[in-house]
Amino acid sequence: MGINMNDTIGVIDLGSNTARLVVYRRDDQGLVYEVENVKRTLRLSSHLRDGRLEREGIEKTLACMRQFQQLLGAYNAATAIGVATAAVRQAANGRELLDAIRAETGLSIRVLSGEEEARYGYLAVVNTMDIDEGITVDIGGGSTEVTWFSGRRLRESVSFPFGIVTLTRMFLPGDPPADEEMKRLQAYVERQFSGCTWIRDRRCPVIAIGGTARNLAKMHQRSVGYSLGSVHHYAMSAEQVDRVLERACALPWEERRQMPGLSKDRADVILSGIAVFRALLAVVNGRELVVSNKGLRDGVLYETVFGAQPADIREVRRRSVEQFMNRYQVDKRHARHVRTLALALFDQLRELGVVRCGEAEQTWLEAAALLHDVGRAINVYESAEHTFYLLSHVLLLGFTHRERLLIAMIASYKNNKLLQQQMARHSDIVGKADKALAETLGHVILLARTLDRSMTQPITDVRLREDGERIVLECVGSGENLMEYALLEDVLAKVSKAWKRPVGFRAVTRPAD
Amino acid sequence: MGINMNDTIGVIDLGSNTARLVVYRRDDQGLVYEVENVKRTLRLSSHLRDGRLEREGIEKTLACMRQFQQLLGAYNAATAIGVATAAVRQAANGRELLDAIRAETGLSIRVLSGEEEARYGYLAVVNTMDIDEGITVDIGGGSTEVTWFSGRRLRESVSFPFGIVTLTRMFLPGDPPADEEMKRLQAYVERQFSGCTWIRDRRCPVIAIGGTARNLAKMHQRSVGYSLGSVHHYAMSAEQVDRVLERACALPWEERRQMPGLSKDRADVILSGIAVFRALLAVVNGRELVVSNKGLRDGVLYETVFGAQPADIREVRRRSVEQFMNRYQVDKRHARHVRTLALALFDQLRELGVVRCGEAEQTWLEAAALLHDVGRAINVYESAEHTFYLLSHVLLLGFTHRERLLIAMIASYKNNKLLQQQMARHSDIVGKADKALAETLGHVILLARTLDRSMTQPITDVRLREDGERIVLECVGSGENLMEYALLEDVLAKVSKAWKRPVGFRAVTRPAD
Repeated sequence: MGINMNDTIGVIDLGSNTARLVVYRRDDQGLVYEVENVKRTLRLSSHLRDGRLEREGIEKTLACMRQFQQLLGAYNAATAIGVATAAVRQAANGRELLDAIRAETGLSIRVLSGEEEARYGYLAVVNTMDIDEGITVDIGGGSTEVTWFSGRRLRESVSFPFGIVTLTRMFLPGDPPADEEMKRLQAYVERQFSGCTWIRDRRCPVIAIGGTARNLAKMHQRSVGYSLGSVHHYAMSAEQVDRVLERACALPWEERRQMPGLSKDRADVILSGIAVFRALLAVVNGRELVVSNKGLRDGVLYETVFGAQPADIREVRRRSVEQFMNRYQVDKRHARHVRTLALALFDQLRELGVVRCGEAEQTWLEAAALLHDVGRAINVYESAEHTFYLLSHVLLLGFTHRERLLIAMIASYKNNKLLQQQMARHSDIVGKADKALAETLGHVILLARTLDRSMTQPITDVRLREDGERIVLECVGSGENLMEYALLEDVLAKVSKAWKRPVGFRAVTRPAD
Repeated sequence: MGINMNDTIGVIDLGSNTARLVVYRRDDQGLVYEVENVKRTLRLSSHLRDGRLEREGIEKTLACMRQFQQLLGAYNAATAIGVATAAVRQAANGRELLDAIRAETGLSIRVLSGEEEARYGYLAVVNTMDIDEGITVDIGGGSTEVTWFSGRRLRESVSFPFGIVTLTRMFLPGDPPADEEMKRLQAYVERQFSGCTWIRDRRCPVIAIGGTARNLAKMHQRSVGYSLGSVHHYAMSAEQVDRVLERACALPWEERRQMPGLSKDRADVILSGIAVFRALLAVVNGRELVVSNKGLRDGVLYETVFGAQPADIREVRRRSVEQFMNRYQVDKRHARHVRTLALALFDQLRELGVVRCGEAEQTWLEAAALLHDVGRAINVYESAEHTFYLLSHVLLLGFTHRERLLIAMIASYKNNKLLQQQMARHSDIVGKADKALAETLGHVILLARTLDRSMTQPITDVRLREDGERIVLECVGSGENLMEYALLEDVLAKVSKAWKRPVGFRAVTRPAD
């Protein structure tokens, strides 16, 4: 790939509305996470006059790129990847701008075609979300990219030559816009989308990428008091999208920019943006809009780091869990051993009929086992609370919000009081059945981690034997007097309650090799 | 010191009631934080028969030490320091036990005299708390250590040959104890304390160390729904101590162990423990009990790491802030530059009469400036929220709870909404005046960090010039087109509001060297 492990990569996205620099750190395993993210609102597409970028727009862009270059230097970024979209693509003098940037800063920025832009959006989605078929839409300042994928493979893609800045200029001169203006805009966009047969009546989820989508999600979350501060994988019904749009349309700009969740510098263009989503949902005949916080720049990064092939969802999750472990310095030998023990217990509990779960639950249990100790990166005291905090505040890719909370509750299970607090805080996302599940599986983790409390893997095997009503936990370990056994008594009392069966214990000493 | 930098140190405290292993990591600067903490309740002092430790107690202790040795191995601890207190000190065969431990595990454990034990408690207190004069008390299973310090120097110390296990056995055979039994216990302990003239009527705070103190604090915190999960530096009035004791005395053991905040394995000995605090407060004629979560083992560690001299409170805070920065990977060049800018702004705002603060506020501002970015160790997104989380959940030494919250609010200041949420969560600790202060100083940090947003220190000096009602921020920087200046507009609008003065801006380019 030409990129070293454990280094820093910058991605610059010179869009038609905003320019953004994201700096990613790459760990020993080649997995990435963001360490810096700065945005400047340049509105390049509004500096297009007769197909050319005006001097003022060019100057602003150059100044911004100098600043990005500064910041890349501060992070010691070994690699910088730059891409430019519609405004530069459409400008007759776009090439000159990029040459000037290269001359002044050394940054080389590549102009993407509409199809490339669309494909990067798709790549961002399949590398971060659990969705098999969908229509992606990414609205920029001066263009809108749409793709269709199914079976996680890209099927079609198209770039439309309109974006939030240009649509606002074309259709919405009034403030607030008249009903008629909004209707004309929407009708125009619907006509454009309907021209693609593969979009019409596709009846799958629409996945919305980019700043407009993020703002839409935040506005809705703020209006309902959503309990999780995460927009990635946030799902909204078509009606919910409608309601946000209606509320925003009713306000003049000065009041609209005060709407909770809306970035002030987006208050003028948000209406046309949401209208595009609405039009696409109508043409797709889709019922659900799912927001992706990962977009173009992430697609560009993933291609560089993981290649252009779409990742399997299991691989997406595996990478994200590993990256989480690396980032928060988990003792991986311990974590993997806890996973082995937890899965062994889980299988046997299923056979005994104590837990009735399927593959999804196993996936959550596995992630929880690997991540149960992340909170120790914050502090050894109250580490369960910290584990929950990290898992509910830092994005784990490939899982829905409910799944992320379930994993967080299972991984951090300590006692019923803590679980109840967590449930109370997130009652809009997790329900009563989830609590029961988190309690059952939380005790599996609690038991498994106790069985490696010394972090030295003295217990290599666990068996659950039935003895009438009673279950006997048989541990095969390196001795009789393990710290683990000394701590078991308390834990088994709790486990008996949670599994609703008396649980006894027997130590079996492994013959020395 | 014979201890390398950036290593791991284990401290074993073989007490009369519990044995504990704490593993500390030492960073590049020689500063320490805990990475592991395990406790086993051995009740050694109840295994003393006719002045000798019984076989069973010895076996239990040996097994526990083998487990600790295992764990020390798992952490690759280069150094292990072991100390033993009253039970081993008083046992005629204590030496044999320690020899057996050394033979079986290689761990060498040193028996402390009562005076040494007392001195280590004092060392723990002066190395972690902002108290100039106090009486410390550390109740073990079989002895109680008391010191008096003033001007942060140790003046007197004494060890009494009674502890929670022995007092419970002597005075509290009934369950729940009769009033008379409690009174006799208290009278006995008061007589013992009164024998020391330097304790009598000292009228200073009593600082309570050890497990009993921790449990007392937690019980009180749970009963009032205290909003901070921290016991170190938690202050209680004598009446509050009384009330906890009364509630606990009224319950039989089986119910008492369910009391929120109380460790189940301490339910039998907590009454005599609290009664000792109560008796000491009475003899000292003190009004306040302050709990220290740092005790014997920390004193032992601090002596090894920092020497036996008491640290100045400024040095205590400096070390703790530095350790926090190291632990959460703060970019120190940036942090120190933000401090320089913030302090320069603060001084000039004082001269202009915009802020009316003294030395204490400057200390908080300085800590906040150095720590404003700690949240980035969790995630670059929502890093202000993470900064607040870390500063309100991880102990910063040398500050009271209110001070820690103030620093957290100032360091994480982003907008009024976030500040209000923080205030609402902790309204039992911070009040309205604190909010105003956090807002004023929070804006100083917000401005200072914006002035080094590129993290490359392009702005070396800031001056506030008065221009009628208006204040002009004059920045001396390395150029005209800095990223910092591009971001100033929004921030200055906020700052104007907070400081209640219009704030303008002027860039001055520093002549090239």
